[in-house]
Amino acid sequence: MFKSIHRRLKTLLVLTLVFTCWAAVANPRTQISADDLVNIQSSVTASPSFTNFVNETRSRIDEYFRISPDVPLPRDPGGGYTHEQHKKNGIAIYEAGLLSLFTGDERYANHAKQLLLSYAALYPTLKEHPVKHSNYPGRMFWQVLNEAVWLVYAIQGYDAIRRELSAVEKETIEGGLFRPLADFLSIGSANTFNRIHNHAAWAVAAVGTTGYVLDDERYVELAFKGTNLDGSAGFYQLIDNLFSPDGYYTEGPYYQRYALMPFVVFARVIASNQPELEIFEYRKSVLVSAIYACVDLSYNGLFFPLNDAIKDKGLNTVELRYGIAIAFALTEDPSLLAIAQMQDGFVLTSDSLKMAQAIDAGRAKPFGYIPRLFRDGPNGTSGALGILRGDSGKMGQAVVVKATSHGFGHGHFDRLNWLYYDNGSEIVSDYGSVRFLNIEQKEGGRYLPENTTWAKQTIAHNTLVVDETSQFDANAEEADRFHPKVVQFHGDRPIVLIRASTENPYQDIRMERLLALVENVAEERHLVVDIFSVESNAEHQFDLPIHFEGQYIATNKQPTAVEAVTLRPLGERNGYQHLWLRSKQELVSNETFLFTWLIGNRFYSVLALTDSPSQVLFAQLGANDPDFNLRPQKVLIRRVNGVKRTTFVSVLESHGEYNGAAEFTINNRPTIKTLRFLENDHLQLVTLDTVNSATYHIAFSRMRDAESTHVIVLDGIPLKLQGYAAAFDGEGNQI
Amino acid sequence: MFKSIHRRLKTLLVLTLVFTCWAAVANPRTQISADDLVNIQSSVTASPSFTNFVNETRSRIDEYFRISPDVPLPRDPGGGYTHEQHKKNGIAIYEAGLLSLFTGDERYANHAKQLLLSYAALYPTLKEHPVKHSNYPGRMFWQVLNEAVWLVYAIQGYDAIRRELSAVEKETIEGGLFRPLADFLSIGSANTFNRIHNHAAWAVAAVGTTGYVLDDERYVELAFKGTNLDGSAGFYQLIDNLFSPDGYYTEGPYYQRYALMPFVVFARVIASNQPELEIFEYRKSVLVSAIYACVDLSYNGLFFPLNDAIKDKGLNTVELRYGIAIAFALTEDPSLLAIAQMQDGFVLTSDSLKMAQAIDAGRAKPFGYIPRLFRDGPNGTSGALGILRGDSGKMGQAVVVKATSHGFGHGHFDRLNWLYYDNGSEIVSDYGSVRFLNIEQKEGGRYLPENTTWAKQTIAHNTLVVDETSQFDANAEEADRFHPKVVQFHGDRPIVLIRASTENPYQDIRMERLLALVENVAEERHLVVDIFSVESNAEHQFDLPIHFEGQYIATNKQPTAVEAVTLRPLGERNGYQHLWLRSKQELVSNETFLFTWLIGNRFYSVLALTDSPSQVLFAQLGANDPDFNLRPQKVLIRRVNGVKRTTFVSVLESHGEYNGAAEFTINNRPTIKTLRFLENDHLQLVTLDTVNSATYHIAFSRMRDAESTHVIVLDGIPLKLQGYAAAFDGEGNQI
Repeated sequence: MFKSIHRRLKTLLVLTLVFTCWAAVANPRTQISADDLVNIQSSVTASPSFTNFVNETRSRIDEYFRISPDVPLPRDPGGGYTHEQHKKNGIAIYEAGLLSLFTGDERYANHAKQLLLSYAALYPTLKEHPVKHSNYPGRMFWQVLNEAVWLVYAIQGYDAIRRELSAVEKETIEGGLFRPLADFLSIGSANTFNRIHNHAAWAVAAVGTTGYVLDDERYVELAFKGTNLDGSAGFYQLIDNLFSPDGYYTEGPYYQRYALMPFVVFARVIASNQPELEIFEYRKSVLVSAIYACVDLSYNGLFFPLNDAIKDKGLNTVELRYGIAIAFALTEDPSLLAIAQMQDGFVLTSDSLKMAQAIDAGRAKPFGYIPRLFRDGPNGTSGALGILRGDSGKMGQAVVVKATSHGFGHGHFDRLNWLYYDNGSEIVSDYGSVRFLNIEQKEGGRYLPENTTWAKQTIAHNTLVVDETSQFDANAEEADRFHPKVVQFHGDRPIVLIRASTENPYQDIRMERLLALVENVAEERHLVVDIFSVESNAEHQFDLPIHFEGQYIATNKQPTAVEAVTLRPLGERNGYQHLWLRSKQELVSNETFLFTWLIGNRFYSVLALTDSPSQVLFAQLGANDPDFNLRPQKVLIRRVNGVKRTTFVSVLESHGEYNGAAEFTINNRPTIKTLRFLENDHLQLVTLDTVNSATYHIAFSRMRDAESTHVIVLDGIPLKLQGYAAAFDGEGNQI
Repeated sequence: MFKSIHRRLKTLLVLTLVFTCWAAVANPRTQISADDLVNIQSSVTASPSFTNFVNETRSRIDEYFRISPDVPLPRDPGGGYTHEQHKKNGIAIYEAGLLSLFTGDERYANHAKQLLLSYAALYPTLKEHPVKHSNYPGRMFWQVLNEAVWLVYAIQGYDAIRRELSAVEKETIEGGLFRPLADFLSIGSANTFNRIHNHAAWAVAAVGTTGYVLDDERYVELAFKGTNLDGSAGFYQLIDNLFSPDGYYTEGPYYQRYALMPFVVFARVIASNQPELEIFEYRKSVLVSAIYACVDLSYNGLFFPLNDAIKDKGLNTVELRYGIAIAFALTEDPSLLAIAQMQDGFVLTSDSLKMAQAIDAGRAKPFGYIPRLFRDGPNGTSGALGILRGDSGKMGQAVVVKATSHGFGHGHFDRLNWLYYDNGSEIVSDYGSVRFLNIEQKEGGRYLPENTTWAKQTIAHNTLVVDETSQFDANAEEADRFHPKVVQFHGDRPIVLIRASTENPYQDIRMERLLALVENVAEERHLVVDIFSVESNAEHQFDLPIHFEGQYIATNKQPTAVEAVTLRPLGERNGYQHLWLRSKQELVSNETFLFTWLIGNRFYSVLALTDSPSQVLFAQLGANDPDFNLRPQKVLIRRVNGVKRTTFVSVLESHGEYNGAAEFTINNRPTIKTLRFLENDHLQLVTLDTVNSATYHIAFSRMRDAESTHVIVLDGIPLKLQGYAAAFDGEGNQI
């Protein structure tokens, strides 16, 4: 409560500043300042990598303007011709404008001006967009979001050329295009503008930047305070409510990337125009933390595909090119240069130019990936995302555990879900979303029906499904009310772990999961230990899936049934209707099940046991998919039926090498042979026997207290555990 | 007949030379000569890239010999421990021996010697290998082939250190290991040694190299003449019969790579010891042509996966590292250096060192890929493999058409099959073989049952299936008796094409296929035109599959049936039992069917028509696959039933771009809208109407005569065709 009042006071203070200290300087004044212009062209020439980038952009823009770009009447949804054409034109205005600054070539300024004049003629004639798929329709675009994005680009392009225009040209463009557009995005779309949502961030950035460029305080005020001008909406509210104190954005990494752009671009524009606001220091520099978080929330350059996510998005997206450049200009952190090198391109800003110069000077250092716990929620109290890493490289072992809040409409019903990466690839994976972004034939590029019927459902994730239903009965509003609890997190080797629990997703079900990366036990790499406990007062069916990439190699158990001549769906609803059942295996209590698969040049084996009789089902995605929207992903499901409580234990070993070119295979079988498990309310003990007749014990405390001490006596051998976890050899020596 | 006598004469002549001019020089005398030793260490130091390679090899070998390598009693099949350990030891002897020359470090010579002494103790104790899976069993290995490969490596390692050994050591190693092994591989395994087969090439190279190294003419004579010493087998017979005049190896690219190594390595050894034989000039330098052929038979570094092929094999395999280095030493062709750069490593020979120096000196030039027709058969009269290329880069458009002979036991029943590549990827693909090479859990790494029941069957390929049976009823011996006929080949733009026909695969069925890469019609890239004609005296069912990679996007036609809740196999045998039927569409005669799919960042559309009513079936691989051996590949099958003749026409357009990172999509639909087709005995005419209301005609002659002239009058417009093909715009102007 105190915190919240404190923040409100700070906001008021800041709002006062906005209107006392602002004195407009000459254009440009967004991400390049009038002062930058003095040396900009010689700086470009001095940086070979930025020169390359400018030259590439030039040839693209030269080609684009070879004949006058079409400015069509809006007609199509996302992915359609008019949609894509307007998007391209917006970016072309921006790039042509900025190129005129970086090259000094007036043709570019003229290109931008001509296109802006066309829009100034078109825009006043537009009514609501003819495609009626969005609750928030635009005029140029089927959704107002795209219109805001368009303005963020176009206004910066205009800023770059404004000082060159005649008064009549300025009046035409501002009166015909920018003012009506900014009015429409703010007052005219107040529902969107005042939401606490990433769409609002784009609208706020667009309108606010327009205010600075046109030297019109009214738009800046709207951007800071919302359309009611009372601070109940607007930029500070968005920063306060959409990011956690660790810089985590509640919708997840994919939307974090997208949401980040208006925040960092608008903050950068504010910093140019009102440095006294210290916007990047606001809330303990949360915007800078949010940029760094994007890097931590990625593997081998791609974002963890949590919630609705397109899996090919990563650090090389344009949003992160702005973000990393801005963060580097603020921090001069050389490890950001390594990220920039992965981006394989720059953006047309002075920050990006500075970054390119630093790269050219050989200042890049590797980015050190470390285990991280990202708290969720505005106060950091709504669960967390845990990232366990085996080493600091971008290709090493990583485990991601989702114990965050739901994340609004794009959230998936996947509490206590985990992902596993190794050797540059996804190993235990998440489907992401069912959507072909910008591909018109696939429902205009929008989310497809299977996104709801499959991708959001619990069975589509690597977490427990009770009675073949999804968490919260797949009700997002209900899910948004709760969050899991992170019980333990330990970020230091040799055992990096997270333990989280939750009681809300299902009635009368308590579940707790431990995931740990354990060093020094398996020969080659860290083991992943997974202990999933569930209990209830009534009997249920519990399914724990592992969605695995790659090629099935072998199990240690003949199937009791193989569906070789007829495939039928595993169930009827909640995602089960999309899975073809392929085989079934029956296990007795505490029997070790082994499954080995191959991804690229490396083998993976999961050894699993449960303390009840269980089944293992293999299934393949693709049932009830008349439009071929789904990929044929594979899943192993461990099933226990008719019990009130059970614990699923598994150990995942990454091993060996398959080398096709050199024709050899080594360590195609895991070193671990069997698994044993003991637990009580305070402790869990996993015992591993290896093929070389060695034995290891890995002991885990279940207490919140990171300092608690336990002694376990096992066959007369005392194992002393201090803290959350420890591993021992067969003689009880800690390793 | 004359040719064949000529060859025999030449062989006799050469055999005479072998035993008149040979005077043994000092060891080493295989791929490094005693003369090379003078400057070798300083040359390594002068080449940074070779120094890197030597250092990498050193650390690998240092690690390998950190503790004495195990020399186990033979027990396991391919992929198993003893199998892999012996393979590794053979290579370790080779690498340690050669390293002693490249580094001057005696530790390596000692490593090689110690390991050889262990084998000299083991080998005499061995009987036939306990695993009885092979018709040609070895002693160390389950098949004699591996034993021959082992000797090719080990004898070269021994050659490198022989001059340093005492007489006793030499006697121990040669008497205990090399002589018994060479005896076993030649006289002791005469069936293998005297075959015309790649296994014989390894044995011949092993035994012949042993002869040179030990200075024992008897082994060299066996290698040149076969065990009967009459020239009916041995090296020249193998060169004469396994390669076509164009350097094509009849089993296909995958086995060409493997077969090539003993040929080029042994030829290189011969060239060192008996340069007067001019072995590399033999048969118009066919061994050099065969090395170049490997490059032409690849796409983006990977071999075309024809016949039994593992799809991850390509130009970076060790066989090609030897091959390219040897070819470069002979030709100094700088475009081979570009291939070497793709190989990302060298081998421990003086040729490879020379090549590294040339690369370091910046002499590499791009390899120019061009359309090629590779004739098959010893005389080049057994059909051919056609390669159409759209540009000279390794990532451009390529069409591969298989009209070769069957290719022995590893051949597939796939006459008139085609593959299509673009943008660095397989687009229309071949399954390759069903085998997990060296992975013990998958039947010891051998070919799996589905290799026979699926991969070899006709339906697994992109060629016509009659009445759901395979060509030649899947009888390889029968198939080996015939080959298709190449009617036309044209390698120059703007229309690169091949036309081939065959009558043998099915009783009373004549089939002809034209495949053409056509420039200047589609906006962005070349079109692929495919015309498949079939006729018979009786009614049949004709199925023409397209096995496509990537993601199904859309068709222009609602399915009449979609299997959403039960999947059943498409048929009962001949490969059909492995396909799950997913959907069915019904088309009337001459209706244009459109299917668009997405691979990586590019769209592909096939527009298809047949002159009969037809069905389109979509199916997915995986039925009757109890051991999860198959990948879930997708196939579109065009089916015409109950007709005596039909023509399947299709045009494949590569279009547009899906850019996930930058969030745009362009040209997601093909420019071609409809297809029309006319034909008579002399001509075929494909007419295309585009979405922009343009019309194009592509005319093809069916005559063998490359100079024939035709005039087609279409709606009063004369189209004049000279040669095999021409394209015209709607007004009849040739384009």
